[in-house]
Amino acid sequence: MEFTELRYAVTGRVASITFDRPDRLNAWTPTLEAELREAIRRAQADDDVRCAVLTGAGRGFCAGMDMAVLAAGRPPVPQAPSDDDLAQRYGYLGGFDKPLIAAINGAASGVGLCLTLHADLRYVAAGAKLSFPYARRGLVAEHGTAWLLPRLIGPMHTADLLLTGRTVMAEEADGMGLACLLPAEGFLDAVLARAADIANTASPRATRVIKQQLRTARYQTLGQATRGADREMAACRDTEDFREGVQHFLDKRAPRFTGR
Amino acid sequence: MEFTELRYAVTGRVASITFDRPDRLNAWTPTLEAELREAIRRAQADDDVRCAVLTGAGRGFCAGMDMAVLAAGRPPVPQAPSDDDLAQRYGYLGGFDKPLIAAINGAASGVGLCLTLHADLRYVAAGAKLSFPYARRGLVAEHGTAWLLPRLIGPMHTADLLLTGRTVMAEEADGMGLACLLPAEGFLDAVLARAADIANTASPRATRVIKQQLRTARYQTLGQATRGADREMAACRDTEDFREGVQHFLDKRAPRFTGR
Amino acid sequence: MEFTELRYAVTGRVASITFDRPDRLNAWTPTLEAELREAIRRAQADDDVRCAVLTGAGRGFCAGMDMAVLAAGRPPVPQAPSDDDLAQRYGYLGGFDKPLIAAINGAASGVGLCLTLHADLRYVAAGAKLSFPYARRGLVAEHGTAWLLPRLIGPMHTADLLLTGRTVMAEEADGMGLACLLPAEGFLDAVLARAADIANTASPRATRVIKQQLRTARYQTLGQATRGADREMAACRDTEDFREGVQHFLDKRAPRFTGR
Repeated sequence: MEFTELRYAVTGRVASITFDRPDRLNAWTPTLEAELREAIRRAQADDDVRCAVLTGAGRGFCAGMDMAVLAAGRPPVPQAPSDDDLAQRYGYLGGFDKPLIAAINGAASGVGLCLTLHADLRYVAAGAKLSFPYARRGLVAEHGTAWLLPRLIGPMHTADLLLTGRTVMAEEADGMGLACLLPAEGFLDAVLARAADIANTASPRATRVIKQQLRTARYQTLGQATRGADREMAACRDTEDFREGVQHFLDKRAPRFTGR
Repeated sequence: MEFTELRYAVTGRVASITFDRPDRLNAWTPTLEAELREAIRRAQADDDVRCAVLTGAGRGFCAGMDMAVLAAGRPPVPQAPSDDDLAQRYGYLGGFDKPLIAAINGAASGVGLCLTLHADLRYVAAGAKLSFPYARRGLVAEHGTAWLLPRLIGPMHTADLLLTGRTVMAEEADGMGLACLLPAEGFLDAVLARAADIANTASPRATRVIKQQLRTARYQTLGQATRGADREMAACRDTEDFREGVQHFLDKRAPRFTGR
Repeated sequence: MEFTELRYAVTGRVASITFDRPDRLNAWTPTLEAELREAIRRAQADDDVRCAVLTGAGRGFCAGMDMAVLAAGRPPVPQAPSDDDLAQRYGYLGGFDKPLIAAINGAASGVGLCLTLHADLRYVAAGAKLSFPYARRGLVAEHGTAWLLPRLIGPMHTADLLLTGRTVMAEEADGMGLACLLPAEGFLDAVLARAADIANTASPRATRVIKQQLRTARYQTLGQATRGADREMAACRDTEDFREGVQHFLDKRAPRFTGR
């Protein structure tokens, strides 16, 4: 697949996925949706990638569904084949097994904000405007929003954002716990520095297992999660990454993890 | 039913329900409890109401159970007929299918604060004092408190409030995520303006479905919630509210939602 | 059992449990683990104890697993006999039925921070450094961390701490909701004052039942939790602590709870 509406690049173990329709504030289209899925597939398959960053070209992140698409009648959403979390629309983002960071460089609305809820970390540039305007369009909470958002920012802020459909500034979004605020000046570089930090100091094996633990623990009791963690911890003992994790600390040098 | 301990009024699509025992800081009585249930029933049945606000007359919101009632021996709580969420004491507040806002204008304690946990949004006036003093009375977490409060403010702040029984100021409550702080000056007008905003710019059909999604998602997996959302989104396509939601946006005018 | 790596003392209804390897920043050892379990058992069994505080001697709280232990190869964690929450490693801390406070006086890392997640309240001294450095060691989320941490600080801050393994200052930890910040000057006295407040103004029967309600509500529906609360509230009516809870309030004097 040749990308036409996004850019994909790997630099220093970090994959950058940039929505690239800046004249439309990167408004969402079926093409962009398909290309995001393909970009994530590539980042997953590439052993040189240890962290991925989603961002937008120009001054917006993603203005939501392109109004041309919306006014023409939203295309019907194909029904997922099962209840499986990862089989749903955008559910594959949750199955990406490397740290996934959304760098919300500017306006994010509707589906554009919804899909960031599947990322592990969200950073937002000061001054950016965020909204879930569904109620103002006569629409409802999209895809995983009604599940993910309350668990992220609690039921009150969720009701505030979804029932009013109002726009919040990056500063207020940070206070709600929706995203971590960073200065607009040098925003993407700051996020990429954090991504590089993960890519170069965290064991890829560890981040993969930790993401799995967090996904699984959602549906477990504390007891089940603890037993599972104790099994996973025991399994670390014979790995290269654990030996290197202790050794580089004792040697006071940067780690050279293999991911095994 | 003639209301004797609260006032009920509808202005511009917003129902105001005002606890009206100001000389007793609106302390809770069986009469007030029955009248609140009736007021919510009316707001539910009235198609002209699109949002409801609970508040207190005078300088308090609700001082908790009236000490006269408490000292006389609390009346036995009748056992709910089933485990159904909405069948419980104050559970019907969660079943109200329009946005419900608690405007905590002053002191709120015990059951007075407990019942606001069923509202979608809570605003609190600067300077107001809030408490769950159960542990200091030899009492336990009342009604839905032990379930709702941790999901709202997390387990640590919940333990803080419930195990100490201490009083927190509105400012600290805001920091915990218990309620959103607004200035005391012009407090009720500010809340009513937000209620009017919901009533006049959000689709009543959308807010009804979104509230249902949020209630249901509590007990679903992400996959189940996403599939349900995709079905609900598809069902929006042929509604008046969706057509109007797009049209008023393109026309750059206020919406005229019908709720259908 | 004679304590060798911690100190245990009871003053004014509060048990202080102090990790006492200050020259090693109280780094964790099998001995310290066994002694903590015994200290909690004593605090549980002693009717004169109404609240317990965990803290560290010297300038650290607990630097995590002692590197001598780690470098020698972590001892295998024995598999818990069942999925029961309380049967897991450190799970017994959650079964302690009196308020448990972690007073994080200085650096807390790895298992040292992990075990505080089982406490009801965590206070942290300004300037203290906190971390879950597992990913940097090639290790995974330990014991109950992947379950407890998202429920405490949400999934985004959890991913931030666990996937980066980075160190956060007390101030940032407070903003995340991980622990409540207090000034370094007079830190332990301030925490002990709060512990004394619980010990002397809250009904021991009430705090025991409330802790049980909060544990149980994790796995209940709102309806189940409300029915259970209404039964527990009815059971309060004939207790000494409820009668005293009302009486001391009417008499405007300190309570004399018996815990019955």
